[in-house]
Amino acid sequence: MHRTRVRIVEDALDANNTIARANRDDFDRHGVTVLNLMSAPGAGKTSLLERVLAEPPEGVRIGVLEGDVQGSYDAERLAALHVPVVQLNTDAGFGGECHLDANMVRSALPALPLEEIDLLVIENVGNLVCPAEFRVGEDIRAMVCSVTEGEDKPLKYPLMFRACELILINKLDLLPHLEIDLDKLLYNVDAVNPGAQTLLVSARTGEGVGDWRQWLGDLAAGRRQVAAEVSG
Amino acid sequence: MHRTRVRIVEDALDANNTIARANRDDFDRHGVTVLNLMSAPGAGKTSLLERVLAEPPEGVRIGVLEGDVQGSYDAERLAALHVPVVQLNTDAGFGGECHLDANMVRSALPALPLEEIDLLVIENVGNLVCPAEFRVGEDIRAMVCSVTEGEDKPLKYPLMFRACELILINKLDLLPHLEIDLDKLLYNVDAVNPGAQTLLVSARTGEGVGDWRQWLGDLAAGRRQVAAEVSG
Repeated sequence: MHRTRVRIVEDALDANNTIARANRDDFDRHGVTVLNLMSAPGAGKTSLLERVLAEPPEGVRIGVLEGDVQGSYDAERLAALHVPVVQLNTDAGFGGECHLDANMVRSALPALPLEEIDLLVIENVGNLVCPAEFRVGEDIRAMVCSVTEGEDKPLKYPLMFRACELILINKLDLLPHLEIDLDKLLYNVDAVNPGAQTLLVSARTGEGVGDWRQWLGDLAAGRRQVAAEVSG
Repeated sequence: MHRTRVRIVEDALDANNTIARANRDDFDRHGVTVLNLMSAPGAGKTSLLERVLAEPPEGVRIGVLEGDVQGSYDAERLAALHVPVVQLNTDAGFGGECHLDANMVRSALPALPLEEIDLLVIENVGNLVCPAEFRVGEDIRAMVCSVTEGEDKPLKYPLMFRACELILINKLDLLPHLEIDLDKLLYNVDAVNPGAQTLLVSARTGEGVGDWRQWLGDLAAGRRQVAAEVSG
């Protein structure tokens, strides 16, 4: 019975990857670079996006696909910054899924003005487990980890930390008020994903946001090596 | 196709509820009250448990079932307080699930000294979506929401906030350093779960921990009304 269950999961991931490749082809055809941005709930994905959308990397037109179980609160925050934003709810029609998959993203493609953007940021559902398991056609993956979450998160959610090429350590402004050992958090990140790039940031104070903007600019300009292929 | 998919999900939840009822029967037979404790990653479930396990409600013997994708970091923290702790990893044998289900809890029952405890706390996987969908045989459900996560979490994850009889608002000591509007958070909690009990706490300073201890003591003593039946 267990064997059967695993096979079904593998079939589902195969089907997901097939659709992810179709998404990737569509993105490539329009010259759009795609970032899959993930985190636990409340780590600061939207706040970090607000920071760069208010002052985008020069010459880079950014669009956002917002993934949420329910509601459009983040999409409304970002739309106020006059960028193309499409809201995708996993509740309506998808049964309340805890992650985006390639098929959900595919269903949103007709609503995205791909010809008008250079960089699409897909803000995934806040969750440190399942989003890491589903490719959606992205070029690269990044995650936000808040220092308020504790040093142990890389060890407890290693798949997520391993899946990402960039790990943004956010809410740095709160460090003086926490007992967290930042060096230990960085050590744990490196233990599960050796050599992964980390950026220390604070969406609140703006610390490190320049580096985050630069990283996105390099990504859109093709100056950053991206994953070549959706793994089969 | 969509219809088929929904039916399969309902069948899976039916099967889960059947096993949850079997778990409940076993708990009842031993006179054990069971709390399913949930939250986003890093909200402070383990820290709040450490606080009460160090000084439990009088006459209440507490045991803990720790759910994590991987590792036994929390279980080791709690075992240091000399209470029975069993670690359940969703990674090994269960495929890396983002939540506990009734079958996983059932597989852990033989390792739990039910005859020696009055109150079993099941610390679920850190996730604000799927854990709310799976009963595991518990009497009652509670969640921890950290003020660092922002005011909007009840609106974005309403199923979780609705599923819980108690909502612990944690990390109160950080309020002076955040822009969050606590009244708005409490308003949003009440909007999705009218009349739900909330406790304002800080695992760090100990603020509100007395109320949390009292709540657990009342629960174990049967002085708190609990959900009568696993819903079919």
